[in-house]
Amino acid sequence: MEELLKRNFVNAINAGQEIDDIFIVREKQLAFKRDGDPYLALGLADRSGDIKGVAWDNVEALNKTFVAGDYVRIKGSAAEYRGALQLVVQQLDRLDPAEIDPRDFLPTTERDVDQMLSRLVQISRTVQNKHLSQLLSAFFEDKAFVDSFKTAPAAKKMHHAYLGGLLEHTLSIALLIQAIADHYKGIDKDLLLTGGILHDIGKVHEFSYQTHIDYTDAGRLLNHIVIGVEMLDKKIATINDFPEDIAIVLKHMIVSHHGTRDFGSPEPPKTLEAIMLYYLDELDAKVTAVRTFMEAEDPEAAWTPYHRVLERFFFKGKA
Amino acid sequence: MEELLKRNFVNAINAGQEIDDIFIVREKQLAFKRDGDPYLALGLADRSGDIKGVAWDNVEALNKTFVAGDYVRIKGSAAEYRGALQLVVQQLDRLDPAEIDPRDFLPTTERDVDQMLSRLVQISRTVQNKHLSQLLSAFFEDKAFVDSFKTAPAAKKMHHAYLGGLLEHTLSIALLIQAIADHYKGIDKDLLLTGGILHDIGKVHEFSYQTHIDYTDAGRLLNHIVIGVEMLDKKIATINDFPEDIAIVLKHMIVSHHGTRDFGSPEPPKTLEAIMLYYLDELDAKVTAVRTFMEAEDPEAAWTPYHRVLERFFFKGKA
Amino acid sequence: MEELLKRNFVNAINAGQEIDDIFIVREKQLAFKRDGDPYLALGLADRSGDIKGVAWDNVEALNKTFVAGDYVRIKGSAAEYRGALQLVVQQLDRLDPAEIDPRDFLPTTERDVDQMLSRLVQISRTVQNKHLSQLLSAFFEDKAFVDSFKTAPAAKKMHHAYLGGLLEHTLSIALLIQAIADHYKGIDKDLLLTGGILHDIGKVHEFSYQTHIDYTDAGRLLNHIVIGVEMLDKKIATINDFPEDIAIVLKHMIVSHHGTRDFGSPEPPKTLEAIMLYYLDELDAKVTAVRTFMEAEDPEAAWTPYHRVLERFFFKGKA
Amino acid sequence: MEELLKRNFVNAINAGQEIDDIFIVREKQLAFKRDGDPYLALGLADRSGDIKGVAWDNVEALNKTFVAGDYVRIKGSAAEYRGALQLVVQQLDRLDPAEIDPRDFLPTTERDVDQMLSRLVQISRTVQNKHLSQLLSAFFEDKAFVDSFKTAPAAKKMHHAYLGGLLEHTLSIALLIQAIADHYKGIDKDLLLTGGILHDIGKVHEFSYQTHIDYTDAGRLLNHIVIGVEMLDKKIATINDFPEDIAIVLKHMIVSHHGTRDFGSPEPPKTLEAIMLYYLDELDAKVTAVRTFMEAEDPEAAWTPYHRVLERFFFKGKA
Amino acid sequence: MEELLKRNFVNAINAGQEIDDIFIVREKQLAFKRDGDPYLALGLADRSGDIKGVAWDNVEALNKTFVAGDYVRIKGSAAEYRGALQLVVQQLDRLDPAEIDPRDFLPTTERDVDQMLSRLVQISRTVQNKHLSQLLSAFFEDKAFVDSFKTAPAAKKMHHAYLGGLLEHTLSIALLIQAIADHYKGIDKDLLLTGGILHDIGKVHEFSYQTHIDYTDAGRLLNHIVIGVEMLDKKIATINDFPEDIAIVLKHMIVSHHGTRDFGSPEPPKTLEAIMLYYLDELDAKVTAVRTFMEAEDPEAAWTPYHRVLERFFFKGKA
Amino acid sequence: MEELLKRNFVNAINAGQEIDDIFIVREKQLAFKRDGDPYLALGLADRSGDIKGVAWDNVEALNKTFVAGDYVRIKGSAAEYRGALQLVVQQLDRLDPAEIDPRDFLPTTERDVDQMLSRLVQISRTVQNKHLSQLLSAFFEDKAFVDSFKTAPAAKKMHHAYLGGLLEHTLSIALLIQAIADHYKGIDKDLLLTGGILHDIGKVHEFSYQTHIDYTDAGRLLNHIVIGVEMLDKKIATINDFPEDIAIVLKHMIVSHHGTRDFGSPEPPKTLEAIMLYYLDELDAKVTAVRTFMEAEDPEAAWTPYHRVLERFFFKGKA
Repeated sequence: MEELLKRNFVNAINAGQEIDDIFIVREKQLAFKRDGDPYLALGLADRSGDIKGVAWDNVEALNKTFVAGDYVRIKGSAAEYRGALQLVVQQLDRLDPAEIDPRDFLPTTERDVDQMLSRLVQISRTVQNKHLSQLLSAFFEDKAFVDSFKTAPAAKKMHHAYLGGLLEHTLSIALLIQAIADHYKGIDKDLLLTGGILHDIGKVHEFSYQTHIDYTDAGRLLNHIVIGVEMLDKKIATINDFPEDIAIVLKHMIVSHHGTRDFGSPEPPKTLEAIMLYYLDELDAKVTAVRTFMEAEDPEAAWTPYHRVLERFFFKGKA
Repeated sequence: MEELLKRNFVNAINAGQEIDDIFIVREKQLAFKRDGDPYLALGLADRSGDIKGVAWDNVEALNKTFVAGDYVRIKGSAAEYRGALQLVVQQLDRLDPAEIDPRDFLPTTERDVDQMLSRLVQISRTVQNKHLSQLLSAFFEDKAFVDSFKTAPAAKKMHHAYLGGLLEHTLSIALLIQAIADHYKGIDKDLLLTGGILHDIGKVHEFSYQTHIDYTDAGRLLNHIVIGVEMLDKKIATINDFPEDIAIVLKHMIVSHHGTRDFGSPEPPKTLEAIMLYYLDELDAKVTAVRTFMEAEDPEAAWTPYHRVLERFFFKGKA
Repeated sequence: MEELLKRNFVNAINAGQEIDDIFIVREKQLAFKRDGDPYLALGLADRSGDIKGVAWDNVEALNKTFVAGDYVRIKGSAAEYRGALQLVVQQLDRLDPAEIDPRDFLPTTERDVDQMLSRLVQISRTVQNKHLSQLLSAFFEDKAFVDSFKTAPAAKKMHHAYLGGLLEHTLSIALLIQAIADHYKGIDKDLLLTGGILHDIGKVHEFSYQTHIDYTDAGRLLNHIVIGVEMLDKKIATINDFPEDIAIVLKHMIVSHHGTRDFGSPEPPKTLEAIMLYYLDELDAKVTAVRTFMEAEDPEAAWTPYHRVLERFFFKGKA
Repeated sequence: MEELLKRNFVNAINAGQEIDDIFIVREKQLAFKRDGDPYLALGLADRSGDIKGVAWDNVEALNKTFVAGDYVRIKGSAAEYRGALQLVVQQLDRLDPAEIDPRDFLPTTERDVDQMLSRLVQISRTVQNKHLSQLLSAFFEDKAFVDSFKTAPAAKKMHHAYLGGLLEHTLSIALLIQAIADHYKGIDKDLLLTGGILHDIGKVHEFSYQTHIDYTDAGRLLNHIVIGVEMLDKKIATINDFPEDIAIVLKHMIVSHHGTRDFGSPEPPKTLEAIMLYYLDELDAKVTAVRTFMEAEDPEAAWTPYHRVLERFFFKGKA
Repeated sequence: MEELLKRNFVNAINAGQEIDDIFIVREKQLAFKRDGDPYLALGLADRSGDIKGVAWDNVEALNKTFVAGDYVRIKGSAAEYRGALQLVVQQLDRLDPAEIDPRDFLPTTERDVDQMLSRLVQISRTVQNKHLSQLLSAFFEDKAFVDSFKTAPAAKKMHHAYLGGLLEHTLSIALLIQAIADHYKGIDKDLLLTGGILHDIGKVHEFSYQTHIDYTDAGRLLNHIVIGVEMLDKKIATINDFPEDIAIVLKHMIVSHHGTRDFGSPEPPKTLEAIMLYYLDELDAKVTAVRTFMEAEDPEAAWTPYHRVLERFFFKGKA
Repeated sequence: MEELLKRNFVNAINAGQEIDDIFIVREKQLAFKRDGDPYLALGLADRSGDIKGVAWDNVEALNKTFVAGDYVRIKGSAAEYRGALQLVVQQLDRLDPAEIDPRDFLPTTERDVDQMLSRLVQISRTVQNKHLSQLLSAFFEDKAFVDSFKTAPAAKKMHHAYLGGLLEHTLSIALLIQAIADHYKGIDKDLLLTGGILHDIGKVHEFSYQTHIDYTDAGRLLNHIVIGVEMLDKKIATINDFPEDIAIVLKHMIVSHHGTRDFGSPEPPKTLEAIMLYYLDELDAKVTAVRTFMEAEDPEAAWTPYHRVLERFFFKGKA
């Protein structure tokens, strides 16, 4: 099916402009004018920002055709009201989310997804161990997997919580491993790289992201750690004579990569490679989360607001 | 291969008796007599108890033929020394553990394993749901699985830490479920029973128990929760059209049955059935652990010694 | 004193109906019309739901005669305003809460209280031990105790947080004990049943529930665990020759039934009966809390909202 | 019954001395001489120290007449063996603990018990509130209570873990309260003093201390917090018209004096008086525990050994 | 520079009064009248309370001259609007905070700061140890330090969170130490007093309090514990031959005075003096925090609202 | 003073060899031969291993001249006894530890200390920021500091717990920073490098290591975090116009480098550079600790023994 294309992004709409475009409905409210007549007050969005919308005509019938969370095609015009832009809706049709590219509507990585992927594939080709190399190839030749892997976010909140975030985070881990894998003696670099590339694959099934980023049923009930092991099992089953002992230490890297039971790993890291992966994953997640948080807020302020999960203010310093 | 049979158990050996039997070597020490000559001082055992052993002849050569942890066949005689029995070894040959039935040497359930199994199978036949019923049948018709499931312990320490303990614990859970499944409305009894029967299957690969109960590599690196999900995946793959949504809630019961992340569950129980399984599992584990601990100690004492894991003394009351 | 009777429940009031009935005032606000004249905006309720009320006349004097939290008798009429019903108050009189049956106004068990009580008494009669049997009789023959025990909630929030909830929870525990007491050898079933029936008696003085469910001073300062032991002491003092050793293990069941110090038990369970009671109490509290939470929310949704105390979403599954 | 008197304390026994005195048996072992003959090796003690003992004659019969933990009367003589004193036992008779004053055998306060008591009574007379004053008098006029209260330890280990320790700790708290009660406005000094004097009374039943300091059954099953409230209830019941509201805040001080649930208080301190009592109790317990620990060890060392409960080394400084 | 003086405090302003005075701007909002004209709606305050303000003229230019948080001088008149006073602004000028005495605008101790200081200095003169005495003098003769020490708050929230609070808290600690320092033998009273007086000095640089109480950059990045040690180092460097061993135990009192690592002390108290300081500091902080919380709320209520940090309700009792 | 030199290391001593060398006395015991004569049984060591020693002559006088922990010069001969080497002591003289190079006796880095230092200095020269560059030079030109910094261990146990360990760990951190500092945008590489080089300088005063590695008084009372800030303050005071804002964020890196209060940091990392330092420090400490632990144990075993601090077994894999 051909995807519908977004043309005018919210942050480029001007007063007076005629609009025929796709939006996601974030809010919908049936409201009443002073004369008692109803109208629909809408919160519309795409990945570039938010805009209010109003529909004056045929309100009650229209109200039944869509709900908040839907993608809709709107024909109408932009107007200024009390100093803010709003869309005056002439026509509104609900769309099938399968026809939409969510990357136009959800927060998305700022980096080129295909470039990131090809760099990751290139790194994966440096793996010498025959079995691990075969395994990585099997994943990267699996088109359904690669499609999800390129689009999935790495989180709902916190770090890399945007489309393409999983790939961005995974590439970052792979590059960090390349940079320091030779720093310590006795590290199995092939194992470390393979574990680093595959540690979060369960997230492609942990999250749904058609209209907003959320957990799937499987994500909430099984956790991406367990899902990742299951995916690894299935892929290994397609490879001849994949050694059981390698499979176990590789699965251990997925199982233990959250570091402690408190954070969802059934077992803590017990191999040198698993320990390294854990700290590099933490480093990348936290640096990225804090940097994103710093950038999201008042660029003038020396301090961020209070971060509820990390339980502190962060210092951006003074210009 | 035909298994070697144990004939004289340690707790039935008398002074003066000629012995030709199998023992497990718990300790081995090269010691010296007053005249400087070496001898081997052995700690021997079977499931009924311990007995010391000594070998006076050809000591240095003999010493190289076996290590602590081995099964050995000993010919010799029982004698009393300083008020205790000991075996004077005339001949000692190391045995292949594969020829030995570990139930003669390791602590073992006092209940009839086959009776327990057939009762569990019978309960599993009350499951009405076609898919769950097929799944349970697939497990119980898998001879390799059933053999392990009948022998495996449920733990290394704490509760049901003996051969057959996994089956005993599983049957107990199934019976508790039968007793109270109708107590609450809205419980899916088929799901609860199936989850109850399968919640600990990963333990058949988490533990090794040829010469003593210990964790396997996979057990320590992956945890029986993850192993159990993998086993379930493999078995489900053999069944036609097993519904994905049932598979997820069933796997969730394995994933969450330790109740919190602190105890190794990547996700806590999020369905009513998973919540019930968690509490019944805890109830059975703790009551059994405490009762075993109470029985192991001085039957006259009102209080047990301090239990280091449960961090308290237990009260047995007064006769 | 004769109790005033509730006649028209909120969920059965229709526009245009004349009303003369009792309500509890949840909110009261002095507001102003466009012309500057004051009026009283009220939030009224009974156990069936909420309705808004307005009083236009003699507002300032009326305002001084009652506060939020009071029971009031209202004469007036129901009218529709902006799509919602409201009561237009003609007369409003504050009532003495002692004349009111709180079960008409607070959330209340859906089950028949007297039937539950008689079933519990019947179970209590299966106790063979003479002393324990006398003790249970002494409680059930104490009319003041029984009245409170039939009405008290089991909690302010969470599980069984409604009038009659304490009895409902206690009966559930007693039935669970009956169902599984013979499952384990070595359990003193009489002790377990008695402890199960009495474990939460302190809650009759921990909560007040005349106009809303809240803690009493004693409840917040002493905890129902301590209050329960005090109640047991007083009742035991009325029985001849109640053995001290039985009294201690019975009081221990009250003292330890929250399982750990973290949850308010000065000592954790140290007898088999106390351990069993703890897990059955947890099982019943959690299953009931989660089921109530599941039922309270959007019946279409597969997932509940986030549960702040249990810190997770719960899965109700799909139809 | 007349108590038997201790005459020669262990730390004053010299080689060659004839002994006829009472000892507590800390250890007893049936050992064998080189010639195979048995003898009894004893560990004997009184509050001043330890001495070894040996019995050569009639060993097997003698062995059956007493166990470790018993008080015994020994006739014999002191002799030096391998540089250490030992008692050579000629006659040994088990004694009834009821005839013994445990203060001769267990660690005991170095301060005058009667003086401490009379100072505490004197402080209790400064309480102006009629009801609280009556209550304190009722306790101090209760001879059985006072006898226990003068002898009981305040702990098994840690602070004031010696006979008379409870009184010593209580007096210290009362003096601290006197010193700072006027420091803060709005404190009910009578309530604070009464709560301070009574906060640990449950310890007279929590510990047994006839032959060594240990927990009683009630102590381990109910905790001195609950026992203390029960004792208070019984004493209050003997006083006319003791106001319920005073009883609750006073019981709250017992209930909450461990400060948090983690340390066994079902509720944390919720009144100013309970908060003050908690910190003064902590101050006295910790200062005393650490000072005792400092004094027990090598007086030359700048640092104590590692304190396992308080998890640190303590610094005594350099002379 | 001469400080500008506050004359009319908010709680003494009457309708109709002409105003020419200093206020702190808590809130500022550009709003619109029905006719579309803009006006400024202000929240103004001094330490006695809050008052609304409105500016009708020259709004857009005026709006650019100040922000929320500024001190401003306002000329205008007080008028009543919808039952509340408001200031109608005729002229508004932003002021330099350096010219303002923050004690007129921020919550401030109710006690006489100079009296408190002189009492503290007097106590400090009782210190006999030559080095400690010199050190205290050096601090009290340091005018810049004393100025800050007299004004600084002891906290942003919780206890003594007002100007002068640091001095008030420090004096309270010094008095408590005087009251009980002789209670225990073996305490170095000079050390305890000096540590008590200096334990919180780091707070003079941890907080800023020109327009509101907040953390400084150094406060958030270094913590007053570390800042306090740095200040002590600098002051000690000005004293001849200050003994290193005294410096260490004194710095240890600052380092450890939060009691545990959880609360920010890099090491827990390891000397008797540090232990005592910790508990007295806790006592003073908690009693003061709870008393302040009790006084802030409805004086009629028996219970305070829920205290989010201390996680409980507090009981004020009934009149 | 000239240092005495170690010549024969323990692991190179052969039976029959004459010895005149320095040892550290790990254990000393006065024992008795069968004939009742005393002798001294010694545990002697240098960094290469342990050897037993015996002294037969003039035992009681000799015994008074030294204690365990002393360095001694021993003349004597090596002999074999029951299959183990021992030194038969002819002469033994206590030595002044100041004359000894502890690196001959304590576990010591296997790497070249001077090479490591010069590499670290070289890295420090890449810092561009004038102030930070001056600061690093000031440290590396301070001979007393450099001497300690080259010898100090990084820990008493766990990671880099050997002489030279602090330098080895610091160099490793600096190299890791070089490898990944450009990986993230927005990182102040100069600040990160300087903080990385200086983060643990406090350890040169936290540990003593003349005869064994232990904490100093200052180490235990102040913690190396506080000591490090003090050292930084002193060095910054020697530099003209060192900017206060740089000083604060640099000190913050020392203050926060343990990551959380639980591990001794008064404040957690609040800048990107502090966050990165924390994770790299953790990575280096844990990888090194685990690798050392793996190497210390049976090289055949697939698993290490249980690690008490990290609370797990580690998997070394199979050859």
